[in-house]
Order: sequence, then C-alpha cells, then structure tokens
Amino acid sequence: MSNIPKPKHFLTTQDWSQNELSQLLEQASRYKANPISDALRNKTVALVFFNPSLRTRTSFEVGVFQMGGHAVVLSPGKDAWPIEIEPGMVMDGDAEEHIIEAAKVLSRYCDVIAVRAFPKFQNWLVDRQDKVLSAFAEYASVPVVNMETIVHPCQELALMQTIQEHLGKPQKRKFLLTWTYHPQPLNTAVANSALLIASKFGMDITLLCPTEDYLLDERYMQAARDNIDEYGGSFKTTYDIEEAYTGAEFVYTKSWGALASFGNWAAEKPVRDRYKHFIVNEEKMALTDNAFFSHCLPARRNIKMTDAVMDADYCLAIQEAENRLHVQKALLDHLINGAA
Amino acid sequence: MSNIPKPKHFLTTQDWSQNELSQLLEQASRYKANPISDALRNKTVALVFFNPSLRTRTSFEVGVFQMGGHAVVLSPGKDAWPIEIEPGMVMDGDAEEHIIEAAKVLSRYCDVIAVRAFPKFQNWLVDRQDKVLSAFAEYASVPVVNMETIVHPCQELALMQTIQEHLGKPQKRKFLLTWTYHPQPLNTAVANSALLIASKFGMDITLLCPTEDYLLDERYMQAARDNIDEYGGSFKTTYDIEEAYTGAEFVYTKSWGALASFGNWAAEKPVRDRYKHFIVNEEKMALTDNAFFSHCLPARRNIKMTDAVMDADYCLAIQEAENRLHVQKALLDHLINGAA
Amino acid sequence: MSNIPKPKHFLTTQDWSQNELSQLLEQASRYKANPISDALRNKTVALVFFNPSLRTRTSFEVGVFQMGGHAVVLSPGKDAWPIEIEPGMVMDGDAEEHIIEAAKVLSRYCDVIAVRAFPKFQNWLVDRQDKVLSAFAEYASVPVVNMETIVHPCQELALMQTIQEHLGKPQKRKFLLTWTYHPQPLNTAVANSALLIASKFGMDITLLCPTEDYLLDERYMQAARDNIDEYGGSFKTTYDIEEAYTGAEFVYTKSWGALASFGNWAAEKPVRDRYKHFIVNEEKMALTDNAFFSHCLPARRNIKMTDAVMDADYCLAIQEAENRLHVQKALLDHLINGAA
Repeated sequence: MSNIPKPKHFLTTQDWSQNELSQLLEQASRYKANPISDALRNKTVALVFFNPSLRTRTSFEVGVFQMGGHAVVLSPGKDAWPIEIEPGMVMDGDAEEHIIEAAKVLSRYCDVIAVRAFPKFQNWLVDRQDKVLSAFAEYASVPVVNMETIVHPCQELALMQTIQEHLGKPQKRKFLLTWTYHPQPLNTAVANSALLIASKFGMDITLLCPTEDYLLDERYMQAARDNIDEYGGSFKTTYDIEEAYTGAEFVYTKSWGALASFGNWAAEKPVRDRYKHFIVNEEKMALTDNAFFSHCLPARRNIKMTDAVMDADYCLAIQEAENRLHVQKALLDHLINGAA
Repeated sequence: MSNIPKPKHFLTTQDWSQNELSQLLEQASRYKANPISDALRNKTVALVFFNPSLRTRTSFEVGVFQMGGHAVVLSPGKDAWPIEIEPGMVMDGDAEEHIIEAAKVLSRYCDVIAVRAFPKFQNWLVDRQDKVLSAFAEYASVPVVNMETIVHPCQELALMQTIQEHLGKPQKRKFLLTWTYHPQPLNTAVANSALLIASKFGMDITLLCPTEDYLLDERYMQAARDNIDEYGGSFKTTYDIEEAYTGAEFVYTKSWGALASFGNWAAEKPVRDRYKHFIVNEEKMALTDNAFFSHCLPARRNIKMTDAVMDADYCLAIQEAENRLHVQKALLDHLINGAA
Repeated sequence: MSNIPKPKHFLTTQDWSQNELSQLLEQASRYKANPISDALRNKTVALVFFNPSLRTRTSFEVGVFQMGGHAVVLSPGKDAWPIEIEPGMVMDGDAEEHIIEAAKVLSRYCDVIAVRAFPKFQNWLVDRQDKVLSAFAEYASVPVVNMETIVHPCQELALMQTIQEHLGKPQKRKFLLTWTYHPQPLNTAVANSALLIASKFGMDITLLCPTEDYLLDERYMQAARDNIDEYGGSFKTTYDIEEAYTGAEFVYTKSWGALASFGNWAAEKPVRDRYKHFIVNEEKMALTDNAFFSHCLPARRNIKMTDAVMDADYCLAIQEAENRLHVQKALLDHLINGAA
C-alpha cells in the first residue's frame, strides 16, 4: 500500500490555496450557467451520512446526476452497520465493522467518498481530532470529501460564491460573523469555516460573540490570522454588538455552544440563555453599510434572525443554499477529472 | 416575489377540469404502451415523505427514471430535519427549519416537489386545512404534487384509468364506494378522492358506510354534487349493504375513522368494531352486476376483503397499482413540459 | 396465472449447475475488466432490505447504474409498510400489506426483485423455511434474487471468483471453513453458503467448529456431500484446530450461533464464550500451506481475526467484497437478458 499515491481529498479549505479555490469557484459559476454535463458519466459517489441532511444530501445527489453520475446514500448505524473508528480495538462492542474495511470497500465501488460526521459534543479535545473523516481519508483509495464535521468546506465555497456574486472582489470587504442564540448548543463547524474562507480571500473580518467563552477554537482563529498574513485583510474579535455591526458589508450568523463548557451543557444553558438578544434583526442591520445577510440553513426563524431579516431582499440564504449545488459539482469534477 | 407567476400544482383534481384530466389519462395510456421516454431528461424530482410508502415511492422513482430523470427521496424528521409549518413562529421547539426555506431550497435543486403528509388524526378541523401541502404550494417556485395528504389525486388518476380500461366510458356507470372495517382509524384521503374522481367523470355514485358518523367531510360530498351538476351522473349515500351492492358495476373499498370521533379514537373503537361485517366478500359481490373490484392498497386481507375477493379475476387492485406508474409519468411530463 | 411460466430466480446456488455458475463467473470477470455496459438500460431493480446493509446495498446500486439501470432501495417496516407473509391470515396485527400484493406490485414496477431477509433467530425450524424469500419467489412475476436469507448465494459467487483468481481451478484444493467467535449468535447463512459453493466446485472441504452443537444444518451438510458426489472433492468435519489448519490452501471464517441452542441464546452464550481461541491469527495461518484468507465482511477485528491477519497480503476480504459488484452484474445481466 505504501507506494500507492494518496488521492487528493477535500477535508478543509486550509489544505487548498486561494488560487485552487478560485478555480473551483470559476468552474462553479460555469456550472450555474450550464448545469448539465458529462463530467461524471458512469461515475459513482458514496454519500456517507452519520447525521441527517436535507440540503447536502439533495444538492450532492442532484449535482452528481446532472453530471451523468450516480450518488449512493448511506446512513451507517441506521440502514448500514455501526462502524468502529479506533485502530487496534478488540471489537466486542456495538460496531460490526471497522472504518478500515468500510473505507476500502467503498473505494472499490465508488469514485469519491463524501462523509458527514458531526462531533459527539461530549469532549472537544476528542471531537477536534475529527477521527471519522481522518480515518476515511487515511484508508480510502479514492478522494474523500468533507460534508461537515468540525468544518464545513462545501458551505465555505457556497458562501464565497455568494459573496463574490454580490460584493465582487472580497478582499478588504467588511465581513461580520456573529454568534446568535439557539436553544441547543450547536456545532462550531460553520463558524470555523466562515473564518477560514473569509480570511483565505483577505476580507476584513469581525467575529462577534457574547464573551470570551464563545470564541472559536484557537486552531481556526490562528488559521484566520495566518491567512490574513498571506492574503491581506484583517481579523478582530469583539463582544460589542453595535461596534460589530457598524459598517459591515456582509453579515453571516451562526449559533454554537461554548467550547469552555463542552460536555457540560446543563451548566452552559442558563449562560447561553442570557444572550437571546444577539438575534439578527432590522435594528442591527440598520447599523451596517447596507450589508447583505446570509446563513447556512437550517435556520430557526425568530430565534437566530427575525422573519423580517429572513424575508428581506438582502437575505441571501436561499441563494447560498443553491450555490451548494454548483460548487460541489465543480469540486467533484475537479477531484475526479483533475484541473479544469 | 409577487410578480413571479405561480407554477401549476397538482394538489387536488378539483383544480383541474375533466378535459385536462382526460388528457393526462390519454397520455398515461401512451406511457403504458411505450414506457421509455426522454421527457424528464436531466430533470430531478424531490419526493418528500412525511409518512412511509411502498407503491408511491417506487412508482414515482421508477417513472422518473424511465423518463430520463432522477428522483431524490427525502424523509423529513427521519433522515432530514423536522420542519415548522406555521408562519411567524418563534422556533424554539423541535423544528430546525421552516417549510418556507425547505420549499424554496428544494425549488432551487429540483424541477418538481412531490409531498406525502398524512393528517395527524387529532383534530380534523386542523387536518382538513392540509397545511404542509399548502405551504409547499405557497412557497415553492416549481410545481408541487400531492402524494397523499387529505386527498390522494394520483390514486384517483390510477383508479380512473383502471375504470376506463374495464368499463369504457365511465359516465352513468354504477360506482359503489364502500366503507370497510380496519382495526385502526384510517385517513379519509382515498375515500374523499374516490368521490371526487368518480363524480368528475359523471358516474352514478353510491357511498355506503355504517352510520352518518362515517359520512365523509361535507367539503368532498359537496364537491361530488358540484361535479355531478357539471358532468352528469348521480350521488347518493346509504347505510344499507344490500341496497348499495345491488346492480353495482365497480366496487371500490376503503376504511376510515369517523370524522365525528376524530382525536377521540378510544371511544370510536368499540363503535367501529361493530361493523366488521362490512368486509367485501363473495356474497356481497354476487349482488352486483358482475362488478369489478378494486382497492388502493395496502390492504389487510380477510379484514377489508376476503382472500377470495382479492384473488378473483374481477379484482383490479394490482392493475390499479401499476397504473400509478403510468398516470404519474403523464402528470410529471405535463407539469414540466406542458400540454402533450 | 397458472399458465404464466415461472421466472428464473436466484434463491440458492443449489438450483444452478456448476456449468451455469461458471458462466456467471466468466461474465463477472468480463465485467471486472470492462465495468460499463448497456445491459440493464432502462431496467429497474427493487432492492428490498428487511435488514441493514452496506456492501450489498452499495454493490447492487452501483452495479445496476453501471449497466444503465436504476435500483430502488426499499426497507419494509422502516420506510415502507410491515408485510404479512403467511397465507390465509386475518390481518388484524401490525402488517398493513400481504407479501402477495407487495410481490405482485413490485413485479409491475421493476424487472428484478432482490430480497434480504435474515432469520428471526427464535426457532430454526421456522427460519429454515425461508418464508419471506419463498413467498416473493412464488408471487413475483419477475426474477427474485437472494441478497441473504439463510444462504447468501451472491457472496458465494464473489468467494468463488476470488478463489479462482488466486488458486486457479478450485477442484481438489484444500478449503477450510472455520467457525470463529463473536459476542452475538450470528446467522449461519454465509457458512451454509461456503459449504455449497466450495462443494459445487469440487474442493476438499474441512469444516472446523468447536463441538457438534456448532455443526451446520444437515440440509447443507448433505447438499455438500451430494455436490461432492457429482463434482468430486471431499468433505470432512473436525473439532481439532491444528488438524484443520494444517495444509489448508484457503481459510474462510465465519461466526454463527449453535443450531442446537436456537432461540435459547442466554444459555448458549457462556458455552460460546469458551471458544474465543478459535480466532484466526498468524500462528494458525502458519500451519497452512501458505493459505489465502478471506471473510465476507463485516468483520470484528481482534474478535474473529487479528489485525495482523486482516492486514496481511494473504487477506482477500476487500477483493472478495469488490467481486460482489462484478458477480451481481453478471447475475442481473443473465436474469434479465438470458445467457451471455
């Protein structure tokens, strides 16, 4: 096995240069204009969902079909076997199969393996290792695509396509990523990803959250700073709502649980409940420089943002969701057929 | 949004004229003779199932494939997100997504959205508003198809194709819709639909049920009378089994819960249990004018009808099930490509 | 119905001659070399899963697609209706549909029906009747394929293709089928099947298990002897590990529950737990004549076999899994289009 070259995966945009991502986005625009192609003719893509999905499932399945291929949708533990991910285990628990075999067998049947595997939300030190995705990437002999684990790079591409469609060149444009309330502590993946892609394209980024407990993992904060060093732009954090919104040109919102309270959610709940006023509403949007607004969906209306914001002309959430289709097609085309 | 014309939906046959439905049925016959076509080449259809399905799922998925398209099967709340349907809600419950976004996003990915959403069986005044389907129809920018809610119009088309194949012109032919027993209180959808389609084609309709408590919603009874006024035929109700069967030319059977007892099923159960003798059997069929028999399936043998009836040559249930495939292909072809 | 000829099914390899199976395997090799074909153009295959699946589901779905067809994946009782299998029942239980209707309706929509239905593990005298598969075979008007019930003939074909790829002609080659430990009592299907296919191709078979309680059903032991009579080879059973491994050329392993304890698993558990040392490891493999090793997957590492065996070059489990794809394509091609 050691002399087989590793396939090119799409695990995080940090493994890809701005130039490579820009080429994907240009190809995505071409697919948006001309959706039908033969790029995946006779090819198959395994979509492995450890967690449920509407947009990701549909956009991948439709996209693969529009390129002449076929997506196989698998839900391990539901309509397939529960899977062990740790190496060397005596498998006397629930798992009937090791991810080594799952990855190798799927590699014999399919040309790409795409994986959704959310954190377990019990121990961030474990979750941040992203073991399921890493194991697929290690054992698969075909390209592996991240459909959301602790980052959500396909969403990043859709967000950046949406930004470019409305702001033009993203460099030095004012991007606000704001924490918002949600009754449960959610995954930080889309927030981490927003930092990664906005910094990769040199935007002036403000991260707004209630307290330092809600800052994102230092890995992603540092990656944003590294990207800024390479591609320009700026990055600051604030707990001041008015300061954050003032002058923003693109407002992106997401809720997440405090990393400091990971696995201790009963204690975090009354803290989080104090910050319901972080909801995105028209008053806050009025502070911006006629900003566009978006969200990755699914979104709880009147919790994360008001109906008025969600239904406004400046809300681009539906367009961003549509762009998932186009960017993923460009990505799969690239992974299977190489550079355009 | 206000200046975008609404797409043509297929929510109930009452929105369609007899002539429009006849054209669908003629196209369905052509598809029955020649199943393979290019009519949906590169097109995608979202099949959204809030309730399980064998026939509907398979016939839609196969039909779309036979026309060159692809169906994406979604089960919200199972392998997708639970969905809020009320407008203006503060979404602090289970639902992670509003149907507004679900409908709009699916409209960006797919060319048709087909929806199955059964009543909740707790409050008929709520269920009869058909809110899930109505919301999809309001927010989708592509045609929406009813795969069974409080009516089942695709089943209606399959039934009418089956009637025409065996009785020829349906006008003035004697159609008996008989209630039958089932251990649980079932949806009235197929019964409502049988009234709608038989009256739309001017048949002489008898509705047989145990008591007035089992009559159908006045909305559908009145629609049947309205159709009779326009297209001829007749409509009567009876609680007399012998009277109902005598002279019938087509016997259609369905079980349903008493609307009067909706949500109060424990009280209705001993009442319903008194009417097990409404089962369709050879003795009752012997009263008819050599009637054909059919049922929408799934059917509990020896509860709704005896094995002898189900296995008789005059039983057309399998043929009606097959016709689902053909009528749905004609319908999708029409909704996507316009009149044949 | 009586004058309609029965379709040719694939329920067990015992219904097929060695020559017929050899032709399937030759066609499978051609598909392995040239995966893309038009053999199932516009055809549809129903995959009915009463039990979960990764390999079977993916290999069938991909295989059908690579031949131009489409597979519909159904899970009765989960996203379709629960199904009654006994004839003549008063259906007042959970089942909403009889298998008669399910089989007949699917036959109207699809060109092949493939079924996975595991034993219930309560009463082997019931399970060994294989009622679900038999009912589909009786009522379907299209070919029915066994995707694992009490035998697993598709796995047999994949195993035999793998054997032929590494041993050449299988006749008189030493094939060891060894029981191995598993925390739960598993299905005997793959073990039964290993006996059937190895004997059908005239191999020298040793069945190794802990005690006579773990011998396989006499039906399959006798079938192996019958095959040996017709095709050569030999068949012996042993409880001696060293004797069994010595000189083996192909080691195949599977765990199963003792038929003698069927349905009485709490009592069998401490007995089974005594035999954990049946695990396939390097020491045992060192006794063989440089044997190859394989397993049908899923496999619990360090329970059924050590990591060292699973990761060895002589382990062919991944290749056998891949061969599922090729043999199933050859099979479907044959069932739909006739002899190659």
